[in-house]
Amino acid sequence: MVSHAGNIHYLTGFTGSAGVLLVNERQAVFFTDGRYTEQARQQVREARVVIARKAPLLAAAEWLQKHQKGRAVVGIEATHMAVAERDRLAKLLPKNMRIKPTPPMLEQMRMIKDAGEVELMRRAAVLGSGLFPVLKEKIRPGKTEIDVACELEYAARKAGADGMSFETIIAAGPRAALPHGRAGGEKIPRTGFVVCDFGVILAGYCSDMTRTVFVGHADDEARTFYGAVREAQQAALEAVRPGAPVSDIDSAARNILKKAGLGRFFTHSTGHGVGLEIHELPRIAGEQQETLQPGMVITIEPGAYVPRKWGVRIEDMVVVTDTGCEVLTPTTKEMICI
Amino acid sequence: MVSHAGNIHYLTGFTGSAGVLLVNERQAVFFTDGRYTEQARQQVREARVVIARKAPLLAAAEWLQKHQKGRAVVGIEATHMAVAERDRLAKLLPKNMRIKPTPPMLEQMRMIKDAGEVELMRRAAVLGSGLFPVLKEKIRPGKTEIDVACELEYAARKAGADGMSFETIIAAGPRAALPHGRAGGEKIPRTGFVVCDFGVILAGYCSDMTRTVFVGHADDEARTFYGAVREAQQAALEAVRPGAPVSDIDSAARNILKKAGLGRFFTHSTGHGVGLEIHELPRIAGEQQETLQPGMVITIEPGAYVPRKWGVRIEDMVVVTDTGCEVLTPTTKEMICI
Repeated sequence: MVSHAGNIHYLTGFTGSAGVLLVNERQAVFFTDGRYTEQARQQVREARVVIARKAPLLAAAEWLQKHQKGRAVVGIEATHMAVAERDRLAKLLPKNMRIKPTPPMLEQMRMIKDAGEVELMRRAAVLGSGLFPVLKEKIRPGKTEIDVACELEYAARKAGADGMSFETIIAAGPRAALPHGRAGGEKIPRTGFVVCDFGVILAGYCSDMTRTVFVGHADDEARTFYGAVREAQQAALEAVRPGAPVSDIDSAARNILKKAGLGRFFTHSTGHGVGLEIHELPRIAGEQQETLQPGMVITIEPGAYVPRKWGVRIEDMVVVTDTGCEVLTPTTKEMICI
Repeated sequence: MVSHAGNIHYLTGFTGSAGVLLVNERQAVFFTDGRYTEQARQQVREARVVIARKAPLLAAAEWLQKHQKGRAVVGIEATHMAVAERDRLAKLLPKNMRIKPTPPMLEQMRMIKDAGEVELMRRAAVLGSGLFPVLKEKIRPGKTEIDVACELEYAARKAGADGMSFETIIAAGPRAALPHGRAGGEKIPRTGFVVCDFGVILAGYCSDMTRTVFVGHADDEARTFYGAVREAQQAALEAVRPGAPVSDIDSAARNILKKAGLGRFFTHSTGHGVGLEIHELPRIAGEQQETLQPGMVITIEPGAYVPRKWGVRIEDMVVVTDTGCEVLTPTTKEMICI
């Protein structure tokens, strides 16, 4: 029983928010509600569609009751299904059926992109990168972060993006020290770093990139700080190859920042998988066990953040190839002063 | 143990995506990770903040182990916490603690908005309504739905919105028959309905409104169809008062459409609560048991959709008052031809 929207999208093409997909050895049946009658007809290719007058979960349970004879195990997506949903399902299923929490199998499948998916992600990344000149043009002291985000998102739509893949981060001056500082009403100061983290959705697939520019005259301290993050990012990129443990990629970036005396300012992990959703497996982090495989598309995004002072992050999206990696984000990583 | 981001936002002011809040009789402690160090410091007012080096859930479990002596019951948000999270928590907690799935208590609290919240929602609704002229100006045959959405969202940002409260729906011509048709690459035809469903976020609160305009010359059939939906929406508005069962509101709209012979084309419920999140309690639907109370902010949004032909939806956001309701959406519901 597949209930997570991203996994339903992956398996059937359906992009709505409500639905349950049942798959057994013989068939696939997709349950959704009346709001999605037309959309399901247009999008769903690999499953029979049932438009339910009740909640899709209820309809799926009734279908199982009617069509699944004998003892059966119903696998649920334990990392997505809420406790209350599971309990409801347990009450709805007949006694001959047992619920089994399953690990994120579909997420494991989705980690490896096929050639067609990589091509779509390349296009998304190129579209995203193509917006960087808008940032260079629009980031000016006195403009608000939201003004800049707004111009960026407008340009993205005009360039053909279906939307943004997450809330645009434009974090200027001391706010650059907030790794997840969404664009706010704050004005861009006369001098300081501006972290710009954004992505687009194109044909369902997400792009994700970060560049950090400097407004005003960058002194040596700023240049050294930027340079350390850039070097860390490059080291992580160079560590990406099939068979490499993801923790090695994380260490490659972290060790450079430690040597530069900035280890304690690198407060997040080095990256994450990306695809139909902005955060997919694998996580590129020290405590993770995964190893890289060809076809994985991941971000490499170390950063350093000094509270109330400034921050820098540099992020590319890359695909793991048979021999190393291809960087999908064509934007320069030279330090840019505005 | 509060783990749902919307509920954490409500209780603490924190708008990040990762965190766990523990509340007992004596104190509130909020656990988040290193990405949110600065943001938590700035936003969280009512709880002590712990920045965890591990997953917030793990950190919360360890805190409980250390600080909570004797037998204890840990209430979890059963409608939000995933089965796998619950299982992980169960393994982390000591033997003297029992996990108890709780009903959506915070969602029940959040249904009733206080005067300050209503004022913020009024402002969000007014900002959203203020964008309608942009639609009247930009909807033209030959323009794509996405072009229109893009202009709308740009105007929203310029007008001071923090963002859109959901993916803008611009559904033109036969696509108007898709109740959840996100703006796509399709061109607006020379004649037909265009359903425009959109909302903004302002100071954390969501607005939500729908207007349907007609492109070209509307004949009697189109006018009658629009008129029926408008009458249904008006009937539902007039039924809104404290003590009214939500199912009565739904029936009020549905009965009008049934009488007009359009009952089977009204394929969704009549509305939903709205607030910090775009979908909150109560649901305004036939099978729901809730009754309206002063301070609830809900949408009233009946629609009718004839597959592959056209569709109309009209939606206001309203607050339940002591005697009836106040419509927060000041935009006209006259049929507008473009």
